[in-house]
Amino acid sequence: MKAFNDLADFSNEEVQALVELASRLDTHPEPEALKGKVLALLFLSPSLRTLASFQAAMVRLGGGSFVISPDMSIHGLETRPGIVMDGAAAEHIREAVPVIASYGDAIGIRAFTERKNVEHDMQEREFSSMTGLIDTPYINMESAMNHPCQSLADWKTMDDFGVPANGGKFVLSWAYHPMALPLAVPVSTLHMAAKRGMDVTVLRPEGFELPAALMDKAKSAAAASGGSVRETDQRKEAMEGAHIIYAKSWSSTRHYGDKLADQKLREKYLDWCVDEPWFANAKEDCRFMHCLPVRRGVVVADRILDGPRSIVIPEARNRMLAQMAVLHQMLGGKK
Amino acid sequence: MKAFNDLADFSNEEVQALVELASRLDTHPEPEALKGKVLALLFLSPSLRTLASFQAAMVRLGGGSFVISPDMSIHGLETRPGIVMDGAAAEHIREAVPVIASYGDAIGIRAFTERKNVEHDMQEREFSSMTGLIDTPYINMESAMNHPCQSLADWKTMDDFGVPANGGKFVLSWAYHPMALPLAVPVSTLHMAAKRGMDVTVLRPEGFELPAALMDKAKSAAAASGGSVRETDQRKEAMEGAHIIYAKSWSSTRHYGDKLADQKLREKYLDWCVDEPWFANAKEDCRFMHCLPVRRGVVVADRILDGPRSIVIPEARNRMLAQMAVLHQMLGGKK
Amino acid sequence: MKAFNDLADFSNEEVQALVELASRLDTHPEPEALKGKVLALLFLSPSLRTLASFQAAMVRLGGGSFVISPDMSIHGLETRPGIVMDGAAAEHIREAVPVIASYGDAIGIRAFTERKNVEHDMQEREFSSMTGLIDTPYINMESAMNHPCQSLADWKTMDDFGVPANGGKFVLSWAYHPMALPLAVPVSTLHMAAKRGMDVTVLRPEGFELPAALMDKAKSAAAASGGSVRETDQRKEAMEGAHIIYAKSWSSTRHYGDKLADQKLREKYLDWCVDEPWFANAKEDCRFMHCLPVRRGVVVADRILDGPRSIVIPEARNRMLAQMAVLHQMLGGKK
Repeated sequence: MKAFNDLADFSNEEVQALVELASRLDTHPEPEALKGKVLALLFLSPSLRTLASFQAAMVRLGGGSFVISPDMSIHGLETRPGIVMDGAAAEHIREAVPVIASYGDAIGIRAFTERKNVEHDMQEREFSSMTGLIDTPYINMESAMNHPCQSLADWKTMDDFGVPANGGKFVLSWAYHPMALPLAVPVSTLHMAAKRGMDVTVLRPEGFELPAALMDKAKSAAAASGGSVRETDQRKEAMEGAHIIYAKSWSSTRHYGDKLADQKLREKYLDWCVDEPWFANAKEDCRFMHCLPVRRGVVVADRILDGPRSIVIPEARNRMLAQMAVLHQMLGGKK
Repeated sequence: MKAFNDLADFSNEEVQALVELASRLDTHPEPEALKGKVLALLFLSPSLRTLASFQAAMVRLGGGSFVISPDMSIHGLETRPGIVMDGAAAEHIREAVPVIASYGDAIGIRAFTERKNVEHDMQEREFSSMTGLIDTPYINMESAMNHPCQSLADWKTMDDFGVPANGGKFVLSWAYHPMALPLAVPVSTLHMAAKRGMDVTVLRPEGFELPAALMDKAKSAAAASGGSVRETDQRKEAMEGAHIIYAKSWSSTRHYGDKLADQKLREKYLDWCVDEPWFANAKEDCRFMHCLPVRRGVVVADRILDGPRSIVIPEARNRMLAQMAVLHQMLGGKK
Repeated sequence: MKAFNDLADFSNEEVQALVELASRLDTHPEPEALKGKVLALLFLSPSLRTLASFQAAMVRLGGGSFVISPDMSIHGLETRPGIVMDGAAAEHIREAVPVIASYGDAIGIRAFTERKNVEHDMQEREFSSMTGLIDTPYINMESAMNHPCQSLADWKTMDDFGVPANGGKFVLSWAYHPMALPLAVPVSTLHMAAKRGMDVTVLRPEGFELPAALMDKAKSAAAASGGSVRETDQRKEAMEGAHIIYAKSWSSTRHYGDKLADQKLREKYLDWCVDEPWFANAKEDCRFMHCLPVRRGVVVADRILDGPRSIVIPEARNRMLAQMAVLHQMLGGKK
């Protein structure tokens, strides 16, 4: 495996093999699998779960890692191409990324975008401009439109809780949040659930539609797996018979890059905070998922997070296990 | 061992076994004892020794660790219960602590309090509200009123330097410091020395008495071990025949939470800076201990710190060894 | 090996042995060589390559490391001797360095100076005042006038690319940079190339001469190895037949410590940006080296950095390998 960039790059069988490897590494530790191997971790955007879970993953497999992020006492990093560097930044990403990668057997990179233009962000130019500089195997730790480690963990989480693939009903619901957030998680989640063969409903207010091209990509994945994809702003209809509600806030795609217009629109939907009444016509054991961090009382009510529906903690733990599987395959782990 | 929260939770025999294990791991390294094991380290308050020594401890035992602290580029952490999270903090400790713990085989947590009310702080509600969220074995890396790793290291340090337990005279002395500092170290130290069976004198100016309930707890421990506990503001009397002076500044308990009144009171005692004359009637080889960091020329004179009485560096190194013993027992280290 | 402080402390045979060990560890990994060993890393100045490469080096040899730097949430560090610590700093380097060292089997220290007086800086008093506090083996990770890890990596890099030692022509060229930078790299590089037996030309504008005592030290090293050292401000003459141009900006030694005068002088030399015309009369395959970070379009043109002459990425990777060799020797690595 040269890159773990998008779950769409892998067949369902390959994903299933990763999920099974993740489970096996949980029950049958392999503390020498990656002895002496190094994972370089480059965080150009904030992180908690990813930061912690990748470091833990490498230790569990007998290797190690190091972290570089701009909040450290390093030289400022320039990202613009072709620039005369006479300002504050002392180092260009064109040197920094290959150098950091050269110390690792693999590199994980997290880099959000400025979110000004949705078409631009869908092209993932910034992220691929970095990975294009290196031959080292790399892992996408969240880019403009992708978060494959989260999606692999989510797939495993549903397997763990016995949520059916074909016939399973998955609701990806927008939720209120005071800020305009990236599309990476909703877009990855949509595609993951579709690829898993589930009947996926994107529940969102008008103005928060996911980009048509990505909806189409998910529909193709669903078609190949015996699932389906649709969208609606009707909560009751969406939740009918749902096995999973996966809550996440995201930017308005209608006003992408226009914070003021986005804010004005989103403030109409303060009531999009997942709470028990949402589950009235769902499956009795319908579960609540979220990638975290989550704002209590804003995105979801405390009683849901603290109650039996929530599986957000095992979901977060699966980040570590899923990443262990990816690292094991990528770095040629031996028993 | 499910928790290492307070030395008082362990019998003297158990403490002695930990001290002996710490010494053994120093002379007979076990670099495979915790192979593939992960220690999660959550610092909600600043650290140097604890940060460094826990990481070093895990490496020496063949495992590893990761660190999360709010100064990193992570999402702001909310600690208040039941709050609607529409402010700056993007993640609640109710998710963050279980998630971080879920990546480790054990978790160390450091969290000071705001120090407004001494009764409140003695209940350790903030700390136990965090540990109550997890099943993972945990280590108290300093809470409002406890610092058991420091105390275990201090116990070992006195053993190393041949300081007698029964019959040993231990002076815990308040010292001047420009700021009102937590009670965790003096309270833990008092109890540790009492539990070790020493004759303990708390030397402090009026207004800096340690809380009565904690003095009583120490007196009980002393009684069970053949030691004693008393307090005084008379330096000469206190130092008579002392084997150890353990200096530490702490908040005024009379004005706990009232910084201005505390400052006004403490500024009367600028001369509480340990120096050679203090040792006039102590044992000739009376040693100076301090948990560090220590302010030179304020808490203690340079000539004491740089002279033969000071054992603060081996004391600090014992933090690592003591913690190795705790981790070895907690995580089931095998030879 | 008790210290790795200056390449001048080692014979050419010892350096060559380190370079060969570095190559061997690259092709024949020894992931158990330093099992359970700890490297303490103290950064009092910013870093990226050093920070990452030392952590990676320890993992590859089966050990581990921890990092302490003042940008962390630690107590402020005081460096002035004999001071009454009633200000912001809560801990003195006199305690911090021995404590941090006591957790490691070796310690790496990076500490720049204020660069006020060049004679003062040549004495390395600050750095040796720290290493004088400890018995732990230490590595100079860059001090006022030394960067031996960079020099060892540079030596290996030239070996890797078949650059001749005797008869090899090495141009150390000053380059423009908006800020006055330390002398550590140019001084170390000069001495390394001379010691390697090369014909070294220091190419710099007037006012940027390297200190005479250090030029003399390099000349002695060159004489012993069959090389030579000279300086000039004539680019064309300097570059004649060059195998290597090693670019680096540094402070004006004429105006050392006088930022304004330095800036005024350096701004005359904005055209000292390495570009293709510089190579007109060099060897056809003349290579470009730089320790990084490097400012694109300021120190060197993009087309050089992105073209076949540049070997800055393998040079940076050699930092890790060179340090692995040093650590292996220092910590008694076994196969």
